[in-house]
Amino acid sequence: MKVLFVGDVVGSIGRKMLFETLPLLKSNYRPQLTIVNGENAAAGRGMTEKIYKEFLQAGVDLITMGNHTWDNRDIFEFIGDERIKMIRPANFPDGTPGIGYKIIQINQSKIAVINLQGRVFLNDLDDPFRKIDEILEEIPKDVLCIFVDFHAEVTSEKQAMAWYLDGRVSAVVGTHTHVQTNDARILPSGTAYLTDAGMTGAYDSILGVETNIIINRFLTQMPVRHQIPEEGRKLLSGCYIEIDDKTGKATKIEPIMVNDDRPFKE
Amino acid sequence: MKVLFVGDVVGSIGRKMLFETLPLLKSNYRPQLTIVNGENAAAGRGMTEKIYKEFLQAGVDLITMGNHTWDNRDIFEFIGDERIKMIRPANFPDGTPGIGYKIIQINQSKIAVINLQGRVFLNDLDDPFRKIDEILEEIPKDVLCIFVDFHAEVTSEKQAMAWYLDGRVSAVVGTHTHVQTNDARILPSGTAYLTDAGMTGAYDSILGVETNIIINRFLTQMPVRHQIPEEGRKLLSGCYIEIDDKTGKATKIEPIMVNDDRPFKE
Amino acid sequence: MKVLFVGDVVGSIGRKMLFETLPLLKSNYRPQLTIVNGENAAAGRGMTEKIYKEFLQAGVDLITMGNHTWDNRDIFEFIGDERIKMIRPANFPDGTPGIGYKIIQINQSKIAVINLQGRVFLNDLDDPFRKIDEILEEIPKDVLCIFVDFHAEVTSEKQAMAWYLDGRVSAVVGTHTHVQTNDARILPSGTAYLTDAGMTGAYDSILGVETNIIINRFLTQMPVRHQIPEEGRKLLSGCYIEIDDKTGKATKIEPIMVNDDRPFKE
Amino acid sequence: MKVLFVGDVVGSIGRKMLFETLPLLKSNYRPQLTIVNGENAAAGRGMTEKIYKEFLQAGVDLITMGNHTWDNRDIFEFIGDERIKMIRPANFPDGTPGIGYKIIQINQSKIAVINLQGRVFLNDLDDPFRKIDEILEEIPKDVLCIFVDFHAEVTSEKQAMAWYLDGRVSAVVGTHTHVQTNDARILPSGTAYLTDAGMTGAYDSILGVETNIIINRFLTQMPVRHQIPEEGRKLLSGCYIEIDDKTGKATKIEPIMVNDDRPFKE
Ligand SMILES: [Fe+2]
Ligand SMILES: [Fe+2]
Ligand SMILES: [Fe+2]
Ligand SMILES: [Fe+2]
Ligand SMILES: [Fe+2]
Ligand SMILES: [Fe+2]
Ligand SMILES: [Fe+2]
Ligand SMILES: [Fe+2]
Repeated sequence: MKVLFVGDVVGSIGRKMLFETLPLLKSNYRPQLTIVNGENAAAGRGMTEKIYKEFLQAGVDLITMGNHTWDNRDIFEFIGDERIKMIRPANFPDGTPGIGYKIIQINQSKIAVINLQGRVFLNDLDDPFRKIDEILEEIPKDVLCIFVDFHAEVTSEKQAMAWYLDGRVSAVVGTHTHVQTNDARILPSGTAYLTDAGMTGAYDSILGVETNIIINRFLTQMPVRHQIPEEGRKLLSGCYIEIDDKTGKATKIEPIMVNDDRPFKE
Repeated sequence: MKVLFVGDVVGSIGRKMLFETLPLLKSNYRPQLTIVNGENAAAGRGMTEKIYKEFLQAGVDLITMGNHTWDNRDIFEFIGDERIKMIRPANFPDGTPGIGYKIIQINQSKIAVINLQGRVFLNDLDDPFRKIDEILEEIPKDVLCIFVDFHAEVTSEKQAMAWYLDGRVSAVVGTHTHVQTNDARILPSGTAYLTDAGMTGAYDSILGVETNIIINRFLTQMPVRHQIPEEGRKLLSGCYIEIDDKTGKATKIEPIMVNDDRPFKE
Repeated sequence: MKVLFVGDVVGSIGRKMLFETLPLLKSNYRPQLTIVNGENAAAGRGMTEKIYKEFLQAGVDLITMGNHTWDNRDIFEFIGDERIKMIRPANFPDGTPGIGYKIIQINQSKIAVINLQGRVFLNDLDDPFRKIDEILEEIPKDVLCIFVDFHAEVTSEKQAMAWYLDGRVSAVVGTHTHVQTNDARILPSGTAYLTDAGMTGAYDSILGVETNIIINRFLTQMPVRHQIPEEGRKLLSGCYIEIDDKTGKATKIEPIMVNDDRPFKE
Repeated sequence: MKVLFVGDVVGSIGRKMLFETLPLLKSNYRPQLTIVNGENAAAGRGMTEKIYKEFLQAGVDLITMGNHTWDNRDIFEFIGDERIKMIRPANFPDGTPGIGYKIIQINQSKIAVINLQGRVFLNDLDDPFRKIDEILEEIPKDVLCIFVDFHAEVTSEKQAMAWYLDGRVSAVVGTHTHVQTNDARILPSGTAYLTDAGMTGAYDSILGVETNIIINRFLTQMPVRHQIPEEGRKLLSGCYIEIDDKTGKATKIEPIMVNDDRPFKE
């Protein structure tokens, strides 16, 4: 199973970069499944139905979310659809709209994609470690490939999740910090791991937001309204993973980083 | 000016990796200045005089610290020495022992090395943005090369510092998360930047600490005593930077990552 | 049902104050049940078997705990005893030693005492709101009196719990901040409420700890070892509650505050 | 010097309660100075010029603020007025609009009123301990009466400030938690202290906000828009302090709590 993952798409500039780059990535990696984190797709805050549909039309198979899931209330209009191709962190409290994981059939194989959120310096959610145990119990035994987007702030929680799941899932890829880490590896029992996939959006920005706004927030400690640059240089971050369909073990993980300084090369 | 930087050395296994790898790195990069973050050198917690001396003997020119500076009280015995080759975050409160930056002469050129600490999810320190402004005022005008180790948790604060300083310092390299980021670049006005240099220590660990201990802390929410693996596979993380001595602008930044999966190659 | 509750007893000076004052309080209020929060009883950090037994000998019927439950490892020696008269927060993770609530028979009536811990600015525990729902389901219907010690940092979480439980439990009394609040009241549906009962220990202290140590921690931002004054003026904080045995509704809540400025008066 | 202080006024219902109760309090206590914390006066978020003027017309002499100072951008229209009778935390960063303290002449005496904000679990501000030292240096020696509104979250930081200032200011009164504490006292060297004065607004609320909204936020972990009840029972919290004009020492501190359960009695 070949999986392409793209990290947090931020605003219209991020969507533009996604739509421009996806064909190149697809032609290069030939993924069977394309997953994109969309928690910041709508002007940095959440997801709308319009953008959701654009993502699918552009060839995204599944969207993952994170702590910004509810920022745009438009999501309540379509998250309940039973055919929804969007998952939100599975350890949101019981009764939360939407689903936390999805099983997808690709040819003869099945892959489960799970979204989880960390708790350190984030919301007070259910324990992601026990929640993933529950989900792994629920998933039918013939689903051998399992991909986890672990949306979390601190490196300790992300690494703990990866080692906790080593040998039990195919891949753990982190999101949320908007900066790709340089630690892609396959853990001893066969789980591919990357602490953070990074973001997709404005290259000359702070986490996708206008630099001056964030600098001023630090200098003045006053509340600010985030603004996403609409023009300028762009960045796409993500990773590519290969999983052995017969064992569910990862055989390859490769970071993807496309920007002006590192133009896409096949 | 050629600068070699090595990220947070954790425990005896980290020191061992540093001492083994440093000759290779030096022979490859021929740095004129070697800086190492040592906040976790003594069993994961702070620095001792013995380790400090070993670092210098091994060819480290300057040690930077961070939020673990005071974990080992041995530091109070030698931090006050006026020839000390160790700096701690400059924005620690007024009256704190030790120094926050140091100017080093290398042949005809001078370089200032500054240590700063972020505030988000860390201690309540003085404003690192205003503190660096003060320091840049203090530094004599003939010091063109300026290297900043910004020890901070969140990516937003680190990127904000980098953009705030772009064109005013030669390099901003982050530490503290113990995971190297894959975003080394030179910002538009000539400042080299890397969100986090990563750590040096046990490769099969969580941030340098025994994996089981940290996993159990997340599962039980009970306090734990960190233990550093003494044996096993090792990792060194850092970066190499070239600065134009005549302008203080960076001309090159290259991440360094040495581990079993990525053995050192010249 | 007459219930006496005493807030966080801190160190030997706190225990001394408890042992001196309890006879006066008992003679004045004639409680049928005396509950004491003991999370800081052992030198400010947790509980030992010796202190546990002293508490019971002094006439304490049940001990509640909080985020300091595991600070003293002596607790693992006796917390598993099935007759234990100590409860720790019920929303600690599954598999945690000890129990989270206890039902006590007093004459013809039964009272359930429940310990819960908040999550805001504290450990990442299970949801205390859903946990209390579960416990209220489990408790036999003939248990009409229910007392909750909600150990939490922020006033919003404590008030939210109180209003959430109004009419479903007899009393919600907060602990953890070590400062008694002046908001004792009976909510519209019959639940007695006090945001924080306050602490028992050194009167001329910061939360029971030597003032200079805490002031220095704020001034230097260096780690400190807490020291509990062994001598000096003392303080006891708590509350007295009356519950109608036939309905489980509270009929009275009265703060208790004993110190040099407010000596105990019958 | 007789000082009346009223804690965080929340929304229109809080303003109504203030305007109704102030005449009773003034007639009872005959204060020479009336200070009100207004950080939540405008629908729970900040201050407007209209409300500011209403406060002054109602007999408020000086308004203090806190972490919600900038929530309503209307404040930028009038905070710069040099005769402004409103102060915001003095340890906001250099260059912040507004002033952090004000000296007021009352007959033959002068009183300085200072607003400070804590840092624990709040914004990353300048050190409030060093800032108050600076201010105490600046204040002319003939100003003997000094009142501090310390807007902070945790009890440790508030008590630390009080003990740090004991004997150097006349009173330290905390705000921000919206719950009055029951620890009013005069410290050994003559400083009156109350950890938190509490709030003024809806009595059947969570910190002044609709109970259901806050309970749902805890249950769902979704973002909510705070709503302030416009009708219903009301609460006023504050304190009354007497200071010896000749020494600046406090001679009396008395909590004020007015609500349906504790109607105002002279
Ligand atoms: Fe996020
Ligand atoms: Fe994001
Ligand atoms: Fe470190
Ligand atoms: Fe650190
Ligand atoms: Fe406590
Ligand atoms: Fe506690
Ligand atoms: Fe506030
Ligand atoms: Fe407030």
